[in-house]
Amino acid sequence: MNQEHEKLKKLIDVAAGRVPADFVLRNCRIVDVFSGTIREGDLAFCGDQIAGIGDYEGKEEMDGEGRYAAPGFIDGHIHIESSYVSPEEIGRLLVPHGATTIMADPHEIVNVCGMKGLEYMRKAARHTALDIKYELPSCVPATPFEHAGAVIDAEAMKEPITRSEIAGLGEFMDFSGVIAGRDDVLDKIEVAKEADKFIDGHVPGISGKELNAYAAAGMIADHECSTVEEMQDRIERGMYVQLRQGSACHDLRVLLKGLTPENSRRCMLCSDDRQPKTIFEEGHLDGHLRICVEEGIDPITAIRMASLNASECYGLKDRGAISPGRRADVVLLDDLKDFHVSSVFIQGQLVAENGQYLPEVTHYDISTVKGSVHLKDFSVDKLKMHLKSNKVNVIEIQPGGVVTKKDTAIVQVDEEGDFVRDPKVDLVKAAVIERHNYTGNAACGFLEGYGIKEGAVALSIAHDSHNVIVVGADNEEMAFAVHCLKEQEGGIVLVKNHQILESMPMPIAGLMSDQTGQWVDERLTAIHETAYREFGIHREVDPVMTLCFMSLPVIPEIKLTDMGLFDVTTFSFLPLEAE
Amino acid sequence: MNQEHEKLKKLIDVAAGRVPADFVLRNCRIVDVFSGTIREGDLAFCGDQIAGIGDYEGKEEMDGEGRYAAPGFIDGHIHIESSYVSPEEIGRLLVPHGATTIMADPHEIVNVCGMKGLEYMRKAARHTALDIKYELPSCVPATPFEHAGAVIDAEAMKEPITRSEIAGLGEFMDFSGVIAGRDDVLDKIEVAKEADKFIDGHVPGISGKELNAYAAAGMIADHECSTVEEMQDRIERGMYVQLRQGSACHDLRVLLKGLTPENSRRCMLCSDDRQPKTIFEEGHLDGHLRICVEEGIDPITAIRMASLNASECYGLKDRGAISPGRRADVVLLDDLKDFHVSSVFIQGQLVAENGQYLPEVTHYDISTVKGSVHLKDFSVDKLKMHLKSNKVNVIEIQPGGVVTKKDTAIVQVDEEGDFVRDPKVDLVKAAVIERHNYTGNAACGFLEGYGIKEGAVALSIAHDSHNVIVVGADNEEMAFAVHCLKEQEGGIVLVKNHQILESMPMPIAGLMSDQTGQWVDERLTAIHETAYREFGIHREVDPVMTLCFMSLPVIPEIKLTDMGLFDVTTFSFLPLEAE
Repeated sequence: MNQEHEKLKKLIDVAAGRVPADFVLRNCRIVDVFSGTIREGDLAFCGDQIAGIGDYEGKEEMDGEGRYAAPGFIDGHIHIESSYVSPEEIGRLLVPHGATTIMADPHEIVNVCGMKGLEYMRKAARHTALDIKYELPSCVPATPFEHAGAVIDAEAMKEPITRSEIAGLGEFMDFSGVIAGRDDVLDKIEVAKEADKFIDGHVPGISGKELNAYAAAGMIADHECSTVEEMQDRIERGMYVQLRQGSACHDLRVLLKGLTPENSRRCMLCSDDRQPKTIFEEGHLDGHLRICVEEGIDPITAIRMASLNASECYGLKDRGAISPGRRADVVLLDDLKDFHVSSVFIQGQLVAENGQYLPEVTHYDISTVKGSVHLKDFSVDKLKMHLKSNKVNVIEIQPGGVVTKKDTAIVQVDEEGDFVRDPKVDLVKAAVIERHNYTGNAACGFLEGYGIKEGAVALSIAHDSHNVIVVGADNEEMAFAVHCLKEQEGGIVLVKNHQILESMPMPIAGLMSDQTGQWVDERLTAIHETAYREFGIHREVDPVMTLCFMSLPVIPEIKLTDMGLFDVTTFSFLPLEAE
Repeated sequence: MNQEHEKLKKLIDVAAGRVPADFVLRNCRIVDVFSGTIREGDLAFCGDQIAGIGDYEGKEEMDGEGRYAAPGFIDGHIHIESSYVSPEEIGRLLVPHGATTIMADPHEIVNVCGMKGLEYMRKAARHTALDIKYELPSCVPATPFEHAGAVIDAEAMKEPITRSEIAGLGEFMDFSGVIAGRDDVLDKIEVAKEADKFIDGHVPGISGKELNAYAAAGMIADHECSTVEEMQDRIERGMYVQLRQGSACHDLRVLLKGLTPENSRRCMLCSDDRQPKTIFEEGHLDGHLRICVEEGIDPITAIRMASLNASECYGLKDRGAISPGRRADVVLLDDLKDFHVSSVFIQGQLVAENGQYLPEVTHYDISTVKGSVHLKDFSVDKLKMHLKSNKVNVIEIQPGGVVTKKDTAIVQVDEEGDFVRDPKVDLVKAAVIERHNYTGNAACGFLEGYGIKEGAVALSIAHDSHNVIVVGADNEEMAFAVHCLKEQEGGIVLVKNHQILESMPMPIAGLMSDQTGQWVDERLTAIHETAYREFGIHREVDPVMTLCFMSLPVIPEIKLTDMGLFDVTTFSFLPLEAE
């Protein structure tokens, strides 16, 4: 308490003008998100807090040169894992774009590593200036139709949810379980409520009474709106809406059509997922703000969605605005149109200037989350089919998305019932191999429309359980790809003729690289080019992303998990053989 | 947990339409404070919660007949004691006007009875449908210049502030202590922060860096604004502003001039104090809303200030709007201009209709807070002065307010130095007598402009320490008045010629009656009339209110406490004799 006492005393002394501020940012146009006005003035910091706006003396000073000082940006919902980089690196990438806080759901790594994964993420986050607020993933495993690396039920949540470093419960993806009032789901909700923690939502496509039920259960927000009507439906039910602009989903422009001066306080900005390429090309929330203004939104209203509204939604009372006593998280902007970020302060420290992250980047030890590819008795035999008929169910890829169609095909079968690929037909074998708990589980299926004619692609990113997924021209190529993937401890690998053509190791839980965002982007570009050029994969198909979502049994219409072929429309497994 | 589980399950079942609602309010125009729109529809309740808006079946139903359904009103700051009635009775008075929650600072009773007073208030509150959220008084005693019944320092706050029934720390009136960074004040602030409880503010007339210091210390709101500039000053520093319309202070109309669509979310409505007479004549927040609309404020913006904004300020996540999962606190209004309240629901129960409070009124036992007038060795001798000079300092009353002026006068003195009243001069004796801890402390002073010519007035309401204050034509009348006040266990008494002319006993801590608001109002009216008619008190002076604030050593310019005459401008005691 004594240290807190001294800190508070000094803050008051600085605010009252009795002792000099630690830092004074002179000559700013301060964005007042409370009054919706711009105020010219100087900003005084005391340690990691704002002391006040006014005429202050500072031990150190900087000239804001008339730039706009906005509260640090808060991303309302993001999965770091989807950027394929570590927490340290996501900080390095996002802070120069004005991010000072992100609400992160470490759902992917916890599906692989359990609470050990969250612990790693939390400790790694201490190595970045970005304040990463972690939510406890609510749905691990995401569905009962696949094997993840961990099972976190209500009982297992009880202790972690009470931890001060856990902001709330992450997106409750099992919305059908909530709406149905399933007991195991209610138990989880109660655990969060008992701990007085928020529960973030995820409820695509639901409306009416079902949405009433979801909202009544206490879900605070939704980032899955893709129409104005969906957005309005959620706002009128008391949910916040996270307007999403990520690498995969681009909902922001559409939703801004439904934004009004009345409802904007219930909206915030989010990425959900943001790959390095998108960050390099479009920035982060600075890019969202640019889009808002392009769409005719008042810039202060837009900034409020990137700050105060998110802080209010999540109860982050110490930030979200520039006012006495709040965290000195401040973004200096050249203008309120392009939102070019000139400088970023986090807790009173200058941490980025002109696109450069300033602190030295150090990394937390990744040994606890390395070596996550646990295969049992894997050999080419696991990839052999034993078909009883030559008419089979197939997964038909829909280019440019993650939705698939169910189709059937007549295939050629060898004497043991295994599939024999016909080079003239665009149909190949895919397999999902359990990689967490040495179960040896594996399932094969057929992929139509991927286009691969040679070699094999294997990866350890396969939402949401992140088993190994492999597709290839024949069993041998596929088996070699899986072997290489295991050797490199996960990530992505492209092989042909028993040679590795491209590889991106992702030692962090098989989900994230320990390298820079630039390196990840270069690797991904090379992987894409090789996949198209050497394997003949169709250019309208994303060779990586398509496979990443091939195993997710909640996206229509047909998917493949380590437990088999899964029909999402009937929510049941399908045999390989068609009727 | 099991009961919570069943409750949540039923709520979801009702919301989803699988089981009938407990109650359906049909045919309403629902005020959506999130979207700022009116939506026609039916409202379904499940127990004490709202299940949803839509087409629902109910076990019971009621036709809203097209009335407006607004969220229950939240008074952002009130002292129940100032209404001179019990918590049970304040509920009976306010609920028919749409109040469903009040944020109450039981500052007065705690100054008299300590934590025992708060405990009584809390238990009494269980006997009303109104949800009374209590704050822990922050400044007991209010100043070091008077003796209150209790001393509550940071140490004494540590345990109570953590209680779930304590919403936060009450208005931090010692703003100069906060701004100065005084250690004992900081200790209190830290205790509240440690418990993650809000701290309500009180900071009249302060601006600039001093206001930065007060805001930096973490004060969440202020209800003392009387100009638009003060309001803007506080909003831009991140404080909420409670727009006050009480019996004594009428700031609402003035402050509404400064309300904008941008800053209104930082504003809410409050009474601070509301006497029964005001409630009968002007209502409660329904009256505030009427004024808002008269002043050109959009009615939904106004309702939002009486609901959502207050709930957000105080972190009352379970109320403040009509949406699934929130408390079924709903007010049916005939229109959005006069705001006539037709029906009020609290936690799903119909509790008021057409101005009538419906539940049976029961009262909690008041024995723990009775008998609070503790005088030691009181006799007429305590009222005798021992003046060393006939030139004295006097308190000059300013009619119509609580501010006084410092003046001097030449008085007639008897052989023992006591004051001899001159019937031709409007100058009388006043005394303040400690009544809490049998200290026997008493101090006398002079009052100019009160007008009393006969008899005496005594009361046990004397902000903020609530010692006995007595004014009279001579020592004997005054002593008899004090005697009668003790006998009736506090309140107000008017005596003449050793007869009680009027009396209003206030057995609850000498601050509140145990009777109805109507009774209090009738008694007060009779007391006023008798004071004017029988005692010759000036009609432009409020005979009761003037004395209630005569002892408050924070309001300029000169006051009288049990410790002596106090100069508020120099913050020091004055001798009776002038220089």
